[in-house]
Amino acid sequence: MQRTVFDADHEAFRQTVRAFIEKEVLPEYDTWLEKGAPRELFRKLGDLGVMGFDIPEEYGGAGPTSFTYQAVVLEEAGRAGVILGHFGVTAGIVLPYLLRLANANQRARWFPGIASGDITFAIAMTEPGTGSDLAGIRTTARRSEDGSHYVLNGAKTFITGARNSELVVVVARTSPASSDDRRSGLSLLVVDTASEGFGFGRKLRKLGQQAADTNELSFTDVHVPAENLLGEEGQGFSYLGQNLPRERLAIGVTTVAAARAAIEQARAYTLERRVFDKPVAAFQNTKFVLAECATEVEAATALLDRGLELDERGELTGADAAKIKLFCTEVAGRVIDKCLQLHGGYGYMLEYPIARLYADTRVTRIYGGTSEVMKTIIAKDLGL
Amino acid sequence: MQRTVFDADHEAFRQTVRAFIEKEVLPEYDTWLEKGAPRELFRKLGDLGVMGFDIPEEYGGAGPTSFTYQAVVLEEAGRAGVILGHFGVTAGIVLPYLLRLANANQRARWFPGIASGDITFAIAMTEPGTGSDLAGIRTTARRSEDGSHYVLNGAKTFITGARNSELVVVVARTSPASSDDRRSGLSLLVVDTASEGFGFGRKLRKLGQQAADTNELSFTDVHVPAENLLGEEGQGFSYLGQNLPRERLAIGVTTVAAARAAIEQARAYTLERRVFDKPVAAFQNTKFVLAECATEVEAATALLDRGLELDERGELTGADAAKIKLFCTEVAGRVIDKCLQLHGGYGYMLEYPIARLYADTRVTRIYGGTSEVMKTIIAKDLGL
Amino acid sequence: MQRTVFDADHEAFRQTVRAFIEKEVLPEYDTWLEKGAPRELFRKLGDLGVMGFDIPEEYGGAGPTSFTYQAVVLEEAGRAGVILGHFGVTAGIVLPYLLRLANANQRARWFPGIASGDITFAIAMTEPGTGSDLAGIRTTARRSEDGSHYVLNGAKTFITGARNSELVVVVARTSPASSDDRRSGLSLLVVDTASEGFGFGRKLRKLGQQAADTNELSFTDVHVPAENLLGEEGQGFSYLGQNLPRERLAIGVTTVAAARAAIEQARAYTLERRVFDKPVAAFQNTKFVLAECATEVEAATALLDRGLELDERGELTGADAAKIKLFCTEVAGRVIDKCLQLHGGYGYMLEYPIARLYADTRVTRIYGGTSEVMKTIIAKDLGL
Amino acid sequence: MQRTVFDADHEAFRQTVRAFIEKEVLPEYDTWLEKGAPRELFRKLGDLGVMGFDIPEEYGGAGPTSFTYQAVVLEEAGRAGVILGHFGVTAGIVLPYLLRLANANQRARWFPGIASGDITFAIAMTEPGTGSDLAGIRTTARRSEDGSHYVLNGAKTFITGARNSELVVVVARTSPASSDDRRSGLSLLVVDTASEGFGFGRKLRKLGQQAADTNELSFTDVHVPAENLLGEEGQGFSYLGQNLPRERLAIGVTTVAAARAAIEQARAYTLERRVFDKPVAAFQNTKFVLAECATEVEAATALLDRGLELDERGELTGADAAKIKLFCTEVAGRVIDKCLQLHGGYGYMLEYPIARLYADTRVTRIYGGTSEVMKTIIAKDLGL
Repeated sequence: MQRTVFDADHEAFRQTVRAFIEKEVLPEYDTWLEKGAPRELFRKLGDLGVMGFDIPEEYGGAGPTSFTYQAVVLEEAGRAGVILGHFGVTAGIVLPYLLRLANANQRARWFPGIASGDITFAIAMTEPGTGSDLAGIRTTARRSEDGSHYVLNGAKTFITGARNSELVVVVARTSPASSDDRRSGLSLLVVDTASEGFGFGRKLRKLGQQAADTNELSFTDVHVPAENLLGEEGQGFSYLGQNLPRERLAIGVTTVAAARAAIEQARAYTLERRVFDKPVAAFQNTKFVLAECATEVEAATALLDRGLELDERGELTGADAAKIKLFCTEVAGRVIDKCLQLHGGYGYMLEYPIARLYADTRVTRIYGGTSEVMKTIIAKDLGL
Repeated sequence: MQRTVFDADHEAFRQTVRAFIEKEVLPEYDTWLEKGAPRELFRKLGDLGVMGFDIPEEYGGAGPTSFTYQAVVLEEAGRAGVILGHFGVTAGIVLPYLLRLANANQRARWFPGIASGDITFAIAMTEPGTGSDLAGIRTTARRSEDGSHYVLNGAKTFITGARNSELVVVVARTSPASSDDRRSGLSLLVVDTASEGFGFGRKLRKLGQQAADTNELSFTDVHVPAENLLGEEGQGFSYLGQNLPRERLAIGVTTVAAARAAIEQARAYTLERRVFDKPVAAFQNTKFVLAECATEVEAATALLDRGLELDERGELTGADAAKIKLFCTEVAGRVIDKCLQLHGGYGYMLEYPIARLYADTRVTRIYGGTSEVMKTIIAKDLGL
Repeated sequence: MQRTVFDADHEAFRQTVRAFIEKEVLPEYDTWLEKGAPRELFRKLGDLGVMGFDIPEEYGGAGPTSFTYQAVVLEEAGRAGVILGHFGVTAGIVLPYLLRLANANQRARWFPGIASGDITFAIAMTEPGTGSDLAGIRTTARRSEDGSHYVLNGAKTFITGARNSELVVVVARTSPASSDDRRSGLSLLVVDTASEGFGFGRKLRKLGQQAADTNELSFTDVHVPAENLLGEEGQGFSYLGQNLPRERLAIGVTTVAAARAAIEQARAYTLERRVFDKPVAAFQNTKFVLAECATEVEAATALLDRGLELDERGELTGADAAKIKLFCTEVAGRVIDKCLQLHGGYGYMLEYPIARLYADTRVTRIYGGTSEVMKTIIAKDLGL
Repeated sequence: MQRTVFDADHEAFRQTVRAFIEKEVLPEYDTWLEKGAPRELFRKLGDLGVMGFDIPEEYGGAGPTSFTYQAVVLEEAGRAGVILGHFGVTAGIVLPYLLRLANANQRARWFPGIASGDITFAIAMTEPGTGSDLAGIRTTARRSEDGSHYVLNGAKTFITGARNSELVVVVARTSPASSDDRRSGLSLLVVDTASEGFGFGRKLRKLGQQAADTNELSFTDVHVPAENLLGEEGQGFSYLGQNLPRERLAIGVTTVAAARAAIEQARAYTLERRVFDKPVAAFQNTKFVLAECATEVEAATALLDRGLELDERGELTGADAAKIKLFCTEVAGRVIDKCLQLHGGYGYMLEYPIARLYADTRVTRIYGGTSEVMKTIIAKDLGL
């Protein structure tokens, strides 16, 4: 069904992004799967102009940009079945925090590098043993006596992109939680990955998403300059939730594009592949399965586009975004599983993109808030 | 999530319709379930102004009207869990045929009565043994020698609303199918239900939808005036499909409204009902189930609204409508089943609207084209 | 797949029961649906020898009988798509309580009548507002000063078969719950439905299961002779759970038989019904759907038969029975829904047994403990 | 629920196998995942006595052995989440062919080595482009003029275990298919992997099952001694199907054991892992999900055990086995997906066995005949 959320400018931009992926990403992608996306990727993305969405032009960015352009990038990556390293983390998750919280000094220091791709960011929230429960964070940042810096100690896990990042936003406890508010006392610090005491723990082996590395991090008396505090001390928790709806919308965009790609792959495969003297596509089961998949993806697209429009107007609520993430990732899970099945044995071979999509997509029902967390948010919105 | 397809005028109209249903329908509805909706209903609906959508003002109608107003009526009926007799058949299915095919004489004869509710229509396509395969129709209409009338013979089944209708559009064979086109030779005749030889067969007992009667019809040498031929002789088949996308969109509208009502009922029930000293709504399972339901209904609504917008621009394709009908009716089936379950034993009692919704909605995956037919259409659109 | 739980004697008995249903039930079943099963049914069932399973021969019963024979009756009813009034309540639910709890005097008074079908029983647990939470029961039975009788006051709802029953086992509070055990103070009383003050409230209109009436009951100073106390005063709660595993096994048996019948109906229908010049059964979708259904029913049968064998050895645990009920009723829900769909429009017509199966079976996920209650039991057994 | 298919001897054997896996497999398994299972494994399995089930004792085997012992090995591997290289191929797939078809000379040459683990086998059926349609095989084996050998040419794909095998059973065309029987003209040849012209093509990268290598094979004028023909020339097709029911039963056994292990892992994880100050297992959603999983696995186990009993009596039909494979693999797919989800982010990390189970198990709905092929078999058995 016709979409109205993108116009001719988006389409032109889409062609640019698509050509970039075909030329710069796909030929190297097998290597990325083994070693992770290379550091150079981000400078190329900077040249392409997609690292600096919303960064003011004075810092080399594109200025205020509709999120729909970022959505085009996500859709094209999803369509091609590639993970652009930790592009989504830097441009989609961390940058919005910076745009909201960074002071003039920080903007001057970081924005030009982000826009050019010379600086990329990871973000470190989860700790071994805390999961989604941020109030349980135990990494501490003690202010030095002269106030010039923080001394950071602790450990984080599931951190995506840190190996390729110059800086990491670390959520740390700058004062003990007060007894009546477990969420108080958290702050956001921007930490240089080259700092002394900054340790990369194990690279975690994952089911999929191998093009983006995921690590444990450890901090042993890491000195973080006081001017690297983001926003106000102790306000970390309140900052953290603010960008979640956009983040979940972005996961929806990527995931539905992947599901749409899966259908296209299964369609092409079953049209070409013959068994018992006719194309697999000629069997009614194939037709029905793909029709079900196309229908679910159509519904997900309509929901998503409504979300993009609400976001454009600044009206996307947390419950809206939760519904979008839940629905889109569940649909993608079902659709990709069915499309893999239509590939028969080939669907299990990693040289077929569908096998990678299957592995890559499984995490989308978990990260950015699990499906269970989404349901909790939605239920609360229903007054339950 | 916010919908944009309806504006303030629609909302005002919605309140009128809602009040009408509360005042004129709900208090009598138990009787309707036993005896079917009464004939007077349609005159009341005529007074309300909803029988004559799109009928030119010169015939007492409302003139060209966006389908979105009709959608409001369907949503309100769905929300209240009521079936407005064969309103949908007359205003939603037959009237579009008449608007397209009726000549001046026919318009003058029928439009004023339809607009006022004095004339309602049924439509008779299916025959015992043909199902969706219209080419197999065996009812014949032989032209009399003087050409003044047709002589109609045959039988139809699954005809909704005929008992309360003055007229029935009958699909009949006016000449044998040609060997190279099984679909040729069919015509549409408007038949007076008071004609001699017009027989009402058994009233069919249905799982739900009792407020609209469904009958077998039989025709034994029924004389149908030649001026009651709709459109051209032999072109019946080509006319029949033209309104299907709108019809399927309408089923989607009704069904999603019913699903939304089911959620609201389950929500209210579980908030009030207590077990083991707490409201049923306080159990995580209740919250999660209703969150899943709300999410699916949100997606269905977004898909539906996209369909309404496409329809408004005259761009709703057959495949679009098939996806909408398939998705919305499948969602409604799942959602209503889950919401019934949350009612426990009360969900099985017909005094609770959820039990009726369950029975009423089951047919929506079948009528207007089964889910399997929808998948066939969608697969064809995918090039399979 | 081959079953080993039944032997040649069972098969002979099965033929007898099948013939009985064909001769005595099916020809009248349309009337039963309107008016409920007739009182005479139970005397006929008595003559057939199926009312007195396990009743000692001295009272005219069959003596200790394997439950597998009762299972044959349930399977045959399920297969035929009929509800044998409240046979299941009397023989399957109440009789086991009596066999365990009735004293010599009570046995002499009631067993012969049960075996012959002259006495049938209902059981009244649920009250308006309590649901599965028996500890919340508010019906009271106050002992008269001379100790000769109880004075019963209160109301019950969802009581199946009471209209056709001479006696009802009523769960009533004979003393207030103690503060440390909400479940104390309940007793079981056998109440004559002809007693003064015994009121039949509304007959509840249900989605299905119309052959068994379901009523509200009210008790206004009903005098119940002290010798009608079942077991010990105050021990009611502990008695109530003891027969639940068997009861849930029985629901599984009936439901799987119904699902198997649904497959057979859909198979026969689709083999005979033609669309687009071939039988519906020739479409791959039909084949695949029926293959899925047959597979699920095969698994349910294997699970059930394991349950029957464990029950035979007295080793069926509460968690086993919960798994059986959950699985069998969920499978039946899915299977019957799919088989109805394969009937197209005819599946919605009550003259086709599949439509009735659909409506009748919906309650099996609710009564005897909802699917949610089953999951709670199973989770507890998993140590969660 | 209690199983009756295994007795005390099985349990003793189970402990032996379990200990073997713990001692010999698990400590090395990370290496296996990178490089495949080592060749030595099979000699160790030979020492354990599990390579020679059913091989006559005179050849060093265990003599006729109930398949239930092999099932114990499969269950223990499934439970531990490990793939024992191509043990299943050699002992479960190839050996039954040899037992049925090998002549005295062949038995003497191969059986002792198989029993000791010195000889392992792969089997090569699928070709690039043929899939399940064996009649389309294009690999040819031309008899040499002196009749002493065949000259083998062609290519195979998806061949598991060939790298570690001394011998491969190759399905090749020894004469052209006759026009009335596409299946004629195929033969089974036992080919030495060290033969000249025997080429290992690419090692295929798979989503899971990395402990067993999967390769393309190519044959360029490979000379195969005539005495390596298995059974009769031209009868290959008829041989191929004969062991399929057992093979599918074996897949069911492995898969259900994996699903059971997944539940145990999720149970342990959620009991230990705390969020918002309580164990994840304390949430109702966790309980319900695990209860659903346990119930489905219980049903699969009951179905499987019935299959094992039928197999023991030599009565397992093709349709029985198809139902077992379809049901067990579909259940495992659902169960493992849900159990992974309960692990949150950890479920995506390969160091947690659940992530590997997810990837390993996906292929079970495909290999040994896809779910779609199973449905086709079942539908045929239903007379559709």
